[in-house]
Amino acid sequence: MSCNSAAAISFSFAGFAERGGRTDHHADGWGIGFYEACGCRTFHDPAPACSSALADFVKTYPIKSRIVLAHIRKATQGATGLSNCHPFQREWLGKQWLFAHNGDLRAWRAPLSGAVLPVGTTDSEHAFCWLMESLRSRFSSGNAPPKQPELFNAIAEFSGVCAAQGNFNMVLSNGEYLFLHCSSKLYTLTRAHPFPIAQLVDCDMRLDLNALNAPTDRITIVATEPLTAEEPWQALATGTTLAIKDGEIVWSHQNMDTCAFPVVADNTPVAAIA
Amino acid sequence: MSCNSAAAISFSFAGFAERGGRTDHHADGWGIGFYEACGCRTFHDPAPACSSALADFVKTYPIKSRIVLAHIRKATQGATGLSNCHPFQREWLGKQWLFAHNGDLRAWRAPLSGAVLPVGTTDSEHAFCWLMESLRSRFSSGNAPPKQPELFNAIAEFSGVCAAQGNFNMVLSNGEYLFLHCSSKLYTLTRAHPFPIAQLVDCDMRLDLNALNAPTDRITIVATEPLTAEEPWQALATGTTLAIKDGEIVWSHQNMDTCAFPVVADNTPVAAIA
Repeated sequence: MSCNSAAAISFSFAGFAERGGRTDHHADGWGIGFYEACGCRTFHDPAPACSSALADFVKTYPIKSRIVLAHIRKATQGATGLSNCHPFQREWLGKQWLFAHNGDLRAWRAPLSGAVLPVGTTDSEHAFCWLMESLRSRFSSGNAPPKQPELFNAIAEFSGVCAAQGNFNMVLSNGEYLFLHCSSKLYTLTRAHPFPIAQLVDCDMRLDLNALNAPTDRITIVATEPLTAEEPWQALATGTTLAIKDGEIVWSHQNMDTCAFPVVADNTPVAAIA
Repeated sequence: MSCNSAAAISFSFAGFAERGGRTDHHADGWGIGFYEACGCRTFHDPAPACSSALADFVKTYPIKSRIVLAHIRKATQGATGLSNCHPFQREWLGKQWLFAHNGDLRAWRAPLSGAVLPVGTTDSEHAFCWLMESLRSRFSSGNAPPKQPELFNAIAEFSGVCAAQGNFNMVLSNGEYLFLHCSSKLYTLTRAHPFPIAQLVDCDMRLDLNALNAPTDRITIVATEPLTAEEPWQALATGTTLAIKDGEIVWSHQNMDTCAFPVVADNTPVAAIA
């Protein structure tokens, strides 16, 4: 989630957490990260999200944030455990970067120099470390942040390298931008005035978003499957990299060459799921 | 806290959290980090610990851990906010390192190369970044962890450099060792069989630790002030660096030369406090 004013994620997270063992099979732990001003805090739990006491706390504790990343895990590589729960976190240039991955990079383990090393055993964290090391190496000339187009292009380029090794749907943030890469399935939804009454697809919850948001609010939500029914979720094309800021897609890049993963059958229009 | 088998910190944390605005003036946020197997999770909140909903959750949620670091903040430098809450965290050599500091390093901001940079604005996080950068630089020859004596000596040496700039009571861990440095006040307490009935000094709570611990358990707790009455808390001497593993002090180093901070009057024997 990215928005132009701090918003609570409680409603969307309530539906999302159901997929951690109840409406979907992603029951091998979960995590969520909130950016608040220049700070960042994460919550991780190796327990299934649908039955986690910590998830229940997060659902009811209204953390207001402009960027939130959440992940529920179906272990394809690496044991179930805290060190393998997304989102993963590393500091670069005085910002905390968070990363979550849906997919499978098979046996790919890019060589790492040691500047950024994985703590756990997943393909996902290894790819994140390689991505952060590659960014550090590309922009090694100073402590100042790189200019936007160069940074965006580098993230698209390195995401393409990862996607060439398998299935690489990912979200990445430095607290200012939310970056996405879609290999097989990612959906985006931008909400603005007039806000709808939203109905979660994973549990029987409806919410009048018009009553909760100001007319100037703009919110973009990204998920591997739409979280709500009857809203215009957009499926991203394979090979797409996006940069989102303040709830708005500000940059996009399309690359069909680097995707090794066949587009799966469930990358269908949203109406079929809603 | 360091122990030889995973233990819940709920009891000690209940007393500790009272110091975040009720029995002491450390009301500018708090944080706690738990190592679980090779994973690590932290909870941070800019709200006072004594009235924080998240602190209430941590008190009742039994996370079993062999190493726990907790901090309540009295802001001497840097605004109140999430990014300035301890413990701070950075990855090095595939381990998450946590750091918390009590003291004041005045205007000291050591030059940093960019490998590890602060996110917030405290003297504490800046010193931690310098410490981690110094360790990376000292042991830059490979991805393997340095040998123990060299690592311990380096931590004592770099802690001495920080302590020469002000008041540097700190705890640091990589999930295996708990390192301490004492400038002005740190107390340690090791509990083993037979365990006592412990009485918190900050609130009216007593607990029969014999009923909760196995005869083979060994636990060392460190705090800037004793947490319980009628237990043999030991005041560390100024300039002491310790390494603790599995609840046992396994290494110590004493340096009187590098401490710029005058030993304060309240660095008194424990009986005066209990």
